[in-house]
Amino acid sequence: MVKIVIVGVEGSVNLGFILRLAMNFDVEDIVLVNPQQIDWDEVKRFSAKAHPLIERLSIKNSFNEAFSPDELKVCTSAIISEEDFLRQSITIDEYRRLLIEREGRVALVFGRESTGLTREELKQCDVVLTIPTSSKYPALNLSHAVAILLYETYVTLGKAYREPGRRPVLASSQDIQGIKDDISKLVSCIAMDENKRERLTRSIINIISRGNPRKAEARALSFVLKRILRRMNCN
Amino acid sequence: MVKIVIVGVEGSVNLGFILRLAMNFDVEDIVLVNPQQIDWDEVKRFSAKAHPLIERLSIKNSFNEAFSPDELKVCTSAIISEEDFLRQSITIDEYRRLLIEREGRVALVFGRESTGLTREELKQCDVVLTIPTSSKYPALNLSHAVAILLYETYVTLGKAYREPGRRPVLASSQDIQGIKDDISKLVSCIAMDENKRERLTRSIINIISRGNPRKAEARALSFVLKRILRRMNCN
Repeated sequence: MVKIVIVGVEGSVNLGFILRLAMNFDVEDIVLVNPQQIDWDEVKRFSAKAHPLIERLSIKNSFNEAFSPDELKVCTSAIISEEDFLRQSITIDEYRRLLIEREGRVALVFGRESTGLTREELKQCDVVLTIPTSSKYPALNLSHAVAILLYETYVTLGKAYREPGRRPVLASSQDIQGIKDDISKLVSCIAMDENKRERLTRSIINIISRGNPRKAEARALSFVLKRILRRMNCN
Repeated sequence: MVKIVIVGVEGSVNLGFILRLAMNFDVEDIVLVNPQQIDWDEVKRFSAKAHPLIERLSIKNSFNEAFSPDELKVCTSAIISEEDFLRQSITIDEYRRLLIEREGRVALVFGRESTGLTREELKQCDVVLTIPTSSKYPALNLSHAVAILLYETYVTLGKAYREPGRRPVLASSQDIQGIKDDISKLVSCIAMDENKRERLTRSIINIISRGNPRKAEARALSFVLKRILRRMNCN
């Protein structure tokens, strides 16, 4: 099952509820990045029968330390924006597909109750996911957002594993990193303006991340990118 | 959208969260049957921006009064039992189908935090639904069960009715065709062998097709491709 990463959590009630939900949905890998002023007695109370999970929490000082190399980082954002290249949400169907193809090797990342994830944090995500809600009042409470995505994940993986069909061989995170680096180099050789470079790079990486490349496809793409870089004398 | 019916609610935090969730998912029809010792200030606090819904709650003294004749009564139960004829849960897929076929005319019924719905109440339901959870700790907190089913309902009905608002603006098939043509040109300038060209082109197009590019992303990718083609004198 997936990992959950909670960044800068501010509420003890929320944290307690999140532990309970983790046990409800068989999640054992819970990382807190810089939790704020937590009242652990309250956490214990609201976690109910899941309180033993408190002992098993992994607490980290920085965003990067929360992840293993092989996980798809799915970051949640309450705000969706067509103009903002960092907030291009995948759809729920895309999330379901990625989850199945990745066989559940996904880290679900949730931001602060007050301000969500920072732009620096969002930049380090593979994909961004906004839970569909009413435009009248889109902001979900943190623990309810966690409930919804753990449920979605549990049901989707549960279904997937009942049908043992064939699964594609995916590119490794190293393969993907190499591709990202090459794209970033390439865009640097083409665009002058820093903002524009970032927008172009991120747009292309968005498409590729959602495309969930297979090993052989990643190899082909990497081959083409390296040829282009060489032909353009771009390094 | 659906109605929610909360029977004998005991917790003010839960009730506040439920009102917030109702607004998050566009539910306006909320019925409380015999609420217990509610602290309305606490309800208001946890409902956040949804507090105006407090004024619009409908409060009833008996289970029967909560329903209109036209609604399918979907009652939730934390306990699933193969032997108990009152606790034969429908599956999530069955719920989705019923919801669509009923065009959302469904009342979602939630029982007490402590003891759920009574057997007398369950007997009056049309179907019983148990949210799939881990057998290690199946009991969801009330407001999280509400979150999950309102989300499930919202997404299922949203898909069925194809609300245009929350969908990403996708690239047109013309945009995509332009990108495919450019990739094919580019690969022709790089690889010699016909078979290899075809394999490379197809691999990259596969990734992009699965990536389901948004309009703005396709524009960025197209810009980069055209620049590369020009720099490589490739036509």
